[in-house]
Amino acid sequence: MRKIRVVGIGAGNPEHITVQAINALNSADVLFLPRKGEDKAELADLRREIIARYLTDPRSRTVEFDLPVRDAGHPSYTGGVGDWYRETAALYAELFAGRLGEAGVGALLVWGDPSLYDGTLRILELVRAAGLAFDIEVIPGISSLHALTAAHATTLNRVAEPVTVTTGRRLSERPPEGDVVVMVDGRLAFRSVDGEAYDIFWGAYLGTGDEILISGRLADVAARIETVRAEARARHGWIMDIYLLRRRTGSAVDGET
Amino acid sequence: MRKIRVVGIGAGNPEHITVQAINALNSADVLFLPRKGEDKAELADLRREIIARYLTDPRSRTVEFDLPVRDAGHPSYTGGVGDWYRETAALYAELFAGRLGEAGVGALLVWGDPSLYDGTLRILELVRAAGLAFDIEVIPGISSLHALTAAHATTLNRVAEPVTVTTGRRLSERPPEGDVVVMVDGRLAFRSVDGEAYDIFWGAYLGTGDEILISGRLADVAARIETVRAEARARHGWIMDIYLLRRRTGSAVDGET
Repeated sequence: MRKIRVVGIGAGNPEHITVQAINALNSADVLFLPRKGEDKAELADLRREIIARYLTDPRSRTVEFDLPVRDAGHPSYTGGVGDWYRETAALYAELFAGRLGEAGVGALLVWGDPSLYDGTLRILELVRAAGLAFDIEVIPGISSLHALTAAHATTLNRVAEPVTVTTGRRLSERPPEGDVVVMVDGRLAFRSVDGEAYDIFWGAYLGTGDEILISGRLADVAARIETVRAEARARHGWIMDIYLLRRRTGSAVDGET
Repeated sequence: MRKIRVVGIGAGNPEHITVQAINALNSADVLFLPRKGEDKAELADLRREIIARYLTDPRSRTVEFDLPVRDAGHPSYTGGVGDWYRETAALYAELFAGRLGEAGVGALLVWGDPSLYDGTLRILELVRAAGLAFDIEVIPGISSLHALTAAHATTLNRVAEPVTVTTGRRLSERPPEGDVVVMVDGRLAFRSVDGEAYDIFWGAYLGTGDEILISGRLADVAARIETVRAEARARHGWIMDIYLLRRRTGSAVDGET
């Protein structure tokens, strides 16, 4: 049976890669590498660096291909994503059938961890649903959740408290009830949150040489984040950022319930 | 200035360790290794295996010590945790001052990722507050969140949906509003959740040779998880488990908003 490995390669720092991921990539027959057609040449360079650094004889078994482009003008966000998943699934089915032998092992490299706001696993289910049989193996990676808190040397949760991972879209619809990590936020939804009640821990280009970190009381730093983010985005042509909003309390231990 | 590295070593599989963590441990002057005095010999063995496998000349620079024991009979959970943090901080202050030179680098190995339901960073803040100056550097690790979803080859969030990371205590107080990951649950709080409305993805001893996985509609598998968990706990003398509760919907793409 064919097998597809979905391999988390970490959140930007080439040293985020695990020993398990290195072994999984080296023992695969084919690495399928998408060209995203986006203005993210630095990310593509980073992936090439990971391959060059950790893979034995990588050139012999990489297959580069162009991903379909998602229709950003689709009337429904999830409808647009669904269409894009189906087109991508058709392309994967063709690639796997054409490039992998009956018992071949293919690998897909995913930024961060494959479980978190990434479509690869959903697309592979569609490939299977369309009739191509293969096993799926997932190798976990350092996600931007953990890259963010490590960079700030802080925790994700307060003692015995929950934390919600969400999107800017969701945050803009409803104020947070407790602590939240916002992973996909082009609309700067933190501007709608009570700046006196929250601390923010913000990071962009985490793990890379261009990493930017800002933290403090949201009311004090929101404007600076907005400015720095706009400048960085203009300079790079793209931005990948994430933030934790933590409710302000008293002591690190005693004020918590 | 002294530096303490808090190094995430992954969620049970020795190959979860990152290249960054291996380098961070190898370039530290002293590794501080707690003996927990708990019935978790397998976990201690696993840590020794990690050290033996990845560290150059480890014996010359490991310092083993006994952690204080938390008072489980304390009237308040967080009060008991607070007392334990302060005792542990006093011990760390003594160890760092006694075993690390003025510019020495020490390392603490943390299971999973240091940001998630782990007290190490809070304890280090108490050590600093008590007057010992040092820098803190955090190396992210594969957390049990990502080990769980990788083992089940599934995602943490549904398309554009939030997911909350919480404890069994919290879940037993209030039914979940959306998808939740429950990380610390000795009370089997999933029994209080509507079993027809949720799928569960449960895992114990993740990443180890003893890994156990059960998934399905909560109503169908809850009793089996309870039995398997009790048997495994009796056999090992301890258990470390985690689960994702995902609201049941229709299609993997179209039913989501």
